Amino acid sequence: MKHNYKIVFRYDGSRYDGWQKQGNTSNTIQGRIEAVLEKMTGEPVEIAGSGRTDAGVHAYGQVANFHMTREMDTDTIKQYLNEYLPQDIRAVSAEKADPRFHSRLNAVSKEYLYVIDNGETADPFRRRYAYHHPEPLNLNRMRRAAEYLIGEHDFKSFCSNKKMKKSSVRTIYEIDIDRKDAEIHIRIRGNGFLYNMVRIIAGTLIEVGKGQREPSDMKKIIGMKDRAYAGPMAPAQGLFLVKVDYENQEGRESE
Amino acid sequence: MKHNYKIVFRYDGSRYDGWQKQGNTSNTIQGRIEAVLEKMTGEPVEIAGSGRTDAGVHAYGQVANFHMTREMDTDTIKQYLNEYLPQDIRAVSAEKADPRFHSRLNAVSKEYLYVIDNGETADPFRRRYAYHHPEPLNLNRMRRAAEYLIGEHDFKSFCSNKKMKKSSVRTIYEIDIDRKDAEIHIRIRGNGFLYNMVRIIAGTLIEVGKGQREPSDMKKIIGMKDRAYAGPMAPAQGLFLVKVDYENQEGRESE
Repeated sequence: MKHNYKIVFRYDGSRYDGWQKQGNTSNTIQGRIEAVLEKMTGEPVEIAGSGRTDAGVHAYGQVANFHMTREMDTDTIKQYLNEYLPQDIRAVSAEKADPRFHSRLNAVSKEYLYVIDNGETADPFRRRYAYHHPEPLNLNRMRRAAEYLIGEHDFKSFCSNKKMKKSSVRTIYEIDIDRKDAEIHIRIRGNGFLYNMVRIIAGTLIEVGKGQREPSDMKKIIGMKDRAYAGPMAPAQGLFLVKVDYENQEGRESE
Repeated sequence: MKHNYKIVFRYDGSRYDGWQKQGNTSNTIQGRIEAVLEKMTGEPVEIAGSGRTDAGVHAYGQVANFHMTREMDTDTIKQYLNEYLPQDIRAVSAEKADPRFHSRLNAVSKEYLYVIDNGETADPFRRRYAYHHPEPLNLNRMRRAAEYLIGEHDFKSFCSNKKMKKSSVRTIYEIDIDRKDAEIHIRIRGNGFLYNMVRIIAGTLIEVGKGQREPSDMKKIIGMKDRAYAGPMAPAQGLFLVKVDYENQEGRESE
């Protein structure tokens, strides 16, 4: 029986083609991590993330797990990863997980953050970590629009994948929209998210904030179940996967 | 009589060889700005900064001024700069200045910030904007050491330039040391700073915070007037020129 390890990663997605390994490209976060783990274990390793993040998208707390034959001290695993990974990918924690724990299948909720730099002049220190949108945004309008998204809905209008055959029903538990100095932070927590869903929600909320749409349009957009009715997709660099939650002991090995 | 303009710049110094133009290298912040202003004015332009910042050092509010023959609307100047400058250099304000205003000669005080990422694991989003130093630091010891630096002193021990012939006497008005989440922020305000002075002060304060030196050693180090007695120079990426203050109207044109 192989040993199962749960690792939390924080990464700056700016220079990567996203989380997921695709064909030959090694310039993915998953690819970089697997290369280090294969060096460490001397065996082929596949690491499962809680979900993909797209090119340019960041993570404060992406959760992933992998199996290996040997048992290893978790501090040693974390140290090894941080020694050999590039500086823009860090392992923030490593722990032993139940053999059946799967970072994607067992996730019960995820939290994303979308950051808008709403200052008149773009902040050069935030250019990789926020979407610069200098026009005034009315947060109360955005909050009223966000209310319509709370709960269980078919979010097909907020999904880039038009050929999706699986269910596009998801539940959003919370959306908080706050100003922090020149930035606007949109936090969304839900049981799962469709392809590009958070970025399309952010793009639509921005249109409401600018007065181009009414807050109540959100209800109509959901009802249409058609991507064409929602707003544009906000750019990747403003998006962060903040954390992934698991039921019971958060995937730790059962005693 | 040429017109004099005062511009405040914010920049991410990561990929530049510092503020000041040197010989043939065009990879300086001053060089980049002058190239844009020459394109704008059609005449040779020299822009004077309030002081140099070294390679990799950042600025929230570097003040600079330049003269031009034509009179121009300040919003237009700011917009032109932000259209043609690279994204990591931004003009945050532009205003007409008194013909005699000089950003360096008229500066009465400057504020610098040194940022230490004191988290166990380096934050990938802060790797260009903080010095990762995971060892525990005792802030009260650092504050007691900083007290000795306040006031007018000969700071020769905190200057990299050993052949300096001019006075190395400067006045430090304030040093604040605070924790912000995983970061430690050292803010220093004074009437002027010697070459690498803030980074050598930061490096010495870190040694005190770790317990390698006593707070009272600071008094002795100042008294020695010898660079060899101070601590190491902390790395460039943690340093920010925060703001530059001027007497009376901050360099605005007199009415």
